[in-house]
Amino acid sequence: MDDRLKHQLDFALEIDKEKNVFRQTHLSGHGRNENDAEHAWHMAIMAYLLKEYSNEPVDIGKVMLMCLIHDIVEIDAGDTYAYDPDAKKTQKARESAARDRIFSLLPEDQKDELSALFDEFEAQETSEARFARAMDNLQPLILNNSNGGSDWREHGVHASQVYRRQSETRPGSEKLYEVTDAIIKDHIGRGNLIE
Amino acid sequence: MDDRLKHQLDFALEIDKEKNVFRQTHLSGHGRNENDAEHAWHMAIMAYLLKEYSNEPVDIGKVMLMCLIHDIVEIDAGDTYAYDPDAKKTQKARESAARDRIFSLLPEDQKDELSALFDEFEAQETSEARFARAMDNLQPLILNNSNGGSDWREHGVHASQVYRRQSETRPGSEKLYEVTDAIIKDHIGRGNLIE
Repeated sequence: MDDRLKHQLDFALEIDKEKNVFRQTHLSGHGRNENDAEHAWHMAIMAYLLKEYSNEPVDIGKVMLMCLIHDIVEIDAGDTYAYDPDAKKTQKARESAARDRIFSLLPEDQKDELSALFDEFEAQETSEARFARAMDNLQPLILNNSNGGSDWREHGVHASQVYRRQSETRPGSEKLYEVTDAIIKDHIGRGNLIE
Repeated sequence: MDDRLKHQLDFALEIDKEKNVFRQTHLSGHGRNENDAEHAWHMAIMAYLLKEYSNEPVDIGKVMLMCLIHDIVEIDAGDTYAYDPDAKKTQKARESAARDRIFSLLPEDQKDELSALFDEFEAQETSEARFARAMDNLQPLILNNSNGGSDWREHGVHASQVYRRQSETRPGSEKLYEVTDAIIKDHIGRGNLIE
């Protein structure tokens, strides 16, 4: 096998580990915790099906790839819970080191391409990054909503925290932010989020 | 919320169930059984990174989407093990009924689009379908190879069965079939596959 293909297959095997990184979100039907690979798969399909609601035109293939790879860094850095302020402080440094190690398994050109795509997602300066972020927020929201807001209740989450996170949906999609806002208000009314 | 968006979100929630459909393949590091959503995520990334080895030019965005959605039917139809001849007999009928039910949750235009994409994958008559099939075969192969062929040993699989399945990799990618062939020969030599 030539060296290039060997590197590509080494990377393919390495990312298998993303299936062991578990999130705070639970699957619908009050299921187990979701892992990063499943979350990314779900986001990518949702991005394709909901692309008409993006505020700006997007290259949907690029959005999908961004969704698929955006959590690979968590193989080393772990999942950082959206409402854990201490973990949030060290997140950037941990994820940057992880990006360098994991993408370096690829041939140089693909390492550069995927690193740039990950950085683009993090920077939130393009229409693709903004729409991918909207999916990153909406996907766990619909699962948690289907479970009666149990992920929020379990952690004693405040509505203001959810609004801070979900405000990042709005630059990607005003329409999907309306849905988000209605879901949050409903859960405040039902006492699942602390006002 | 308008009716169209409601249908799209209903579908998005329904496919969450694919994370509960488990396969015979085990994760690397002698891990647990893999589920369909993880498998699809892995295939889609591999398709993107290995696209240079497709025998024919492909629309890679289409290949990725095909990879992501190809197992949604298994929410109803269940996973059919590649080396279970009885289950194979009823697979088409079970999957066709599942396709009709699940994709019907979507708005008509998207139902038609995803049903057609699923049918295209099954028919294996386009370059995209052939390359997606190569990924469907290669992805579990690299996991099983990393685990010393334990998935084959567990089921007493014969080399001829693996060759029959993996022969479908060749129309998608001669280059990746070479890798496949080398892995199979290695496992025959080590007694992990019955000759």
